[in-house]
This record gives sequence, C-alpha cells and structure tokens, in this order.
Amino acid sequence: MRLVGITRTGSDLVEVADLADDGQTLSVLAELSDFWSAAGEHIARGGGEVLRRDDVTLVPPVLPDARVICIGLNYLKHVAEGSYRSEPLPEYPTLFARWSTSLTVDGDDVPVPADEDGLDWEGEVMAWVGAELIDATPDEALASVVGYSTFNDLTARRAQKLTSQWILGKNADRSGPVGPLVPAAEVGDLRDGLHISTRVNGETVQDAHTDEMVYTVGDTLAHISRTFTVRPGDLLATGTPSGVGYARTPAWLLQPGDVVEVEVDRLGILTNTIVDGEARRSRD
Amino acid sequence: MRLVGITRTGSDLVEVADLADDGQTLSVLAELSDFWSAAGEHIARGGGEVLRRDDVTLVPPVLPDARVICIGLNYLKHVAEGSYRSEPLPEYPTLFARWSTSLTVDGDDVPVPADEDGLDWEGEVMAWVGAELIDATPDEALASVVGYSTFNDLTARRAQKLTSQWILGKNADRSGPVGPLVPAAEVGDLRDGLHISTRVNGETVQDAHTDEMVYTVGDTLAHISRTFTVRPGDLLATGTPSGVGYARTPAWLLQPGDVVEVEVDRLGILTNTIVDGEARRSRD
Repeated sequence: MRLVGITRTGSDLVEVADLADDGQTLSVLAELSDFWSAAGEHIARGGGEVLRRDDVTLVPPVLPDARVICIGLNYLKHVAEGSYRSEPLPEYPTLFARWSTSLTVDGDDVPVPADEDGLDWEGEVMAWVGAELIDATPDEALASVVGYSTFNDLTARRAQKLTSQWILGKNADRSGPVGPLVPAAEVGDLRDGLHISTRVNGETVQDAHTDEMVYTVGDTLAHISRTFTVRPGDLLATGTPSGVGYARTPAWLLQPGDVVEVEVDRLGILTNTIVDGEARRSRD
Repeated sequence: MRLVGITRTGSDLVEVADLADDGQTLSVLAELSDFWSAAGEHIARGGGEVLRRDDVTLVPPVLPDARVICIGLNYLKHVAEGSYRSEPLPEYPTLFARWSTSLTVDGDDVPVPADEDGLDWEGEVMAWVGAELIDATPDEALASVVGYSTFNDLTARRAQKLTSQWILGKNADRSGPVGPLVPAAEVGDLRDGLHISTRVNGETVQDAHTDEMVYTVGDTLAHISRTFTVRPGDLLATGTPSGVGYARTPAWLLQPGDVVEVEVDRLGILTNTIVDGEARRSRD
C-alpha cells in the first residue's frame, strides 16, 4: 500500500488514496481529515473507488495544521561532518520545525531561492503519527506510528546558517518532498536497519542504514509529548545520514536541472528536479 | 475594531468577527479562509450579522496552515540579559517557528508541561500579513500587514534549552495566547514606539517601547520572503523586551494560579491564567 493525497480536477478537497504498483490507478480510502481521525482503521479497510492517475493531482496527505517535527542531528557520521562536530552530542534529539506548507510530492520541481548558491540534499525517513500522545512512553509512541515514507529535507544552507536558529533555511518553497506513506506493518522497525541512500543525477551521495540513528522514533515522540500534545497526522522527520553537500570540499549544492533521488528499502524512490528560483512565482 | 475568531455552538466553522468595546456582542465579517483571501477588503467593509458573546467560543482567527514566524532576539536589553549575550548580534533576525496549534486566545488557561519548573512570560506584538510576499521590498512587506495584536510567547525554558534549537520549548500546548487583531490603520507604525508591558499578578515585569526593536516588521518580512513565500494569514511575532523570568536572580517562572497580562498601546490587554499540567488532558 502506498498512500498519497489527491485532489480531483476542479476540486480543492484532499482525499487519501492508495497508488497502484503500476502507478496508473488509485483507490480512494477517505477524505483527508476523516482519514487522520482513524488512520489505522482506514488502512486496515483499504481503498474503494478507483480513479485514473491522470484524473487527479498528487498532494501530500498532510493536514494543514499538522506539525512537521524534524530531528537535526541523528546519525553520528552526519554530526561529525557538520557545523556542530566540536560540540558534545546532546542527551536529547535536536528538533526543528517545518510548516506543512513547505511540503510537496514525488516528481515536483523545487526552486532555489534567490540568495542561495543551490539547495542541499538530506535524504530521510518520515514517520507518520496516527494517535494522540500526551506524556507517552516510548512504546506507546512507537505504536502510534501508522506508516513511514521517504523524505528529502532540502535545505537552503545560507538561510539556515544566518543565525543560531535553522528554520528559515528549512522552509523554502516546496523544499520538503515527501513520498507515499507505507503502512508500518509493511515496513517493520527502523531499528532493523533499512538501507537509505540519496543520488544526485545518478551518483550516490548518501548511503547508510536506519539502525545508525542515535534517537529512535519511539523515544523521540515520547520526549516531544512531554512538552506538547502530538496529534494524529503529525510527522516526524528522522534526520539525515552523512554525505550532505555543504560539508564537502569543495561544497556541492544542487543546481537547476539536477535530479535528486532518495531511496529507502520498502519505501521506494522519491525523485525531484531542482529548478530556478523564478519558479517560485509560477504557483498559487 | 478588534477582530477575533469564533465558532458558533454546535459548529466547527471558524468565522472572523469584530468584538464590541463592551465585550458583549460581535459582528461577523467573514468565514476564516474567505477573510484571509481579502483581509483588507473585509476590514474596510466591516461586520454584518450581530451575535451575542455568550453564543460563541473564541478561537484564534488563524488559518490552520498559517505560519507563526517568531523573532527571537529583537530588543537589545533582552539580548543582554539572555543566553546569547556573549555572542555578536547577527546581521539578520533570529527566527524560530511556532505551529498554529500552539496558539490560544485571551482568557484561556495555559498548562505547565510536566518537566518544567514553570512557564516564562514573553510579552510581544504580533503582526498579521494579508498579502503574498515573494522577494518583497521592506516597504511592500510593511504594506502587507493588515493588523497587529498582543501576544504572549509563553516559553517552556527547560525544553527550549535542551539543544541548540528552541522550537520544542516554544510550542507547548496553548502556550501562545494571541489577542484580537487591531487593523493597521488604527495602530500606526510600531516605530512610533507603542508602550508594551507585561504584568504577573499585577506586578510589572516587562516595560518597553516598540521603537526599541532592532529588526523592523518590514525588513524582517522582506528578508523571510527571499527564502519562502509569505502568505495571507501568516503571522510575525516581533520579539520580547527585557525582563523575562529565567534571566532573573533567582529565576522567576509562572506557576499554576498565576495571572499574566500583556498590555500594548492601542492593542489592549491579553490576560491568561497558568494551570497545572494535568489540564493538558482535558481538551481535544
């Protein structure tokens, strides 16, 4: 099962649908907020009405008020290559925020903001929460995850590094492509060590396994839930492995025309093309 | 004009309404997304249908996918009292993120998360954006602001300071009370120096003027718009003056039962009561 968001021609209503393996058809599970009110049940029930791919537009199956919570430093080799390598690893995960409006889908173009020398890749696994969590235990928190997907935390490094806080550079337009949600039952546990890799124009630039994560999904969500209530539909981006572009000598950033892919075992391939910043004006 | 969000008994539909000076009645301007599609026009047209205050519930007049962009260090005396006092002031505003789900209204109770010794006050002015901004000039950005309101950026300091990134401690449940939106034409320019003060149980703890801000609203929104598109309904919290609790000796944090008020010239008084963390479980 590969769950995506869709809108039908002439409508703004977002529905959640299962994209067939051949990519030609989809079967509809539920309207978006209905889906997140009981995601586990909708996944167990499966899709109904069948639509042709050509008759819908793909959108992230994300509630407008969902929080996209991101772990900043979660693979030791990435910590070692980056700006924070000289500081002690914190006891808790370093968390930053994306707004849902920064997300987009597989296949979309991603523009480079005017003041950036390019965009940096950060291949990741996204976890999707299906239950409310208040002061949850790690086991409760992990059990709330209804699925996982590929994610590319495309980063405007200049904006990220202007001050101590990263969020400006983490919310560029369409800079968060997220792949289809694959139900947790089909994925298993990230601690099993899913292979995760990122390619730029076919060349592998990140290559790791998810069991290298420092902070687990269950521990991180439990930790978060002690400060704010995690809600159904909230997302957790689990951090990127080593191999990002800005840490290389010389730095290597994505330019208009570059194709970037994130591939994760059992989750598929997420492909996006970088475009010129003028493309920011062509939407909305 | 004091614009608030309302829901009517038995409905989830959010509308924007003008709260009368006596607080007893409201006149309805528009449904929430309709309002933000043309906020300036709706404000110019004014309210229509009149409702009794007792027949509605107040909610923030904030789109679910609105971004709440916050300036972290914007008054020099606050920089001087805090953790960043030994670092050079950055050329650009330090920006952090709130999700819209952390906002609440005047009069609501705000719970202290379990691991915190209390909550810290941060009285602020919020600016509300009514137009799309892409690579805007400071003048264009300032002209896009349709109104201002009081804001209390109530902070879970322990969570904020666990790592380099602040957002966990800036998104506790109901920790962002925001007062009614007052149209920009009634407020004038923040550079005129509106008086802003915060009181705890009647004792003044912050006392400043908005012309002490380092980064102006226009400059900050223009800067942001070079990385991501600012949209109608997005909010900018303009930072807090000196006098916060954690920087005092001994530290002073808000405890259950404490009443905290933020007052700003022309924007009114925002009053909230702190409650025990158990109150997190009594909603939703």
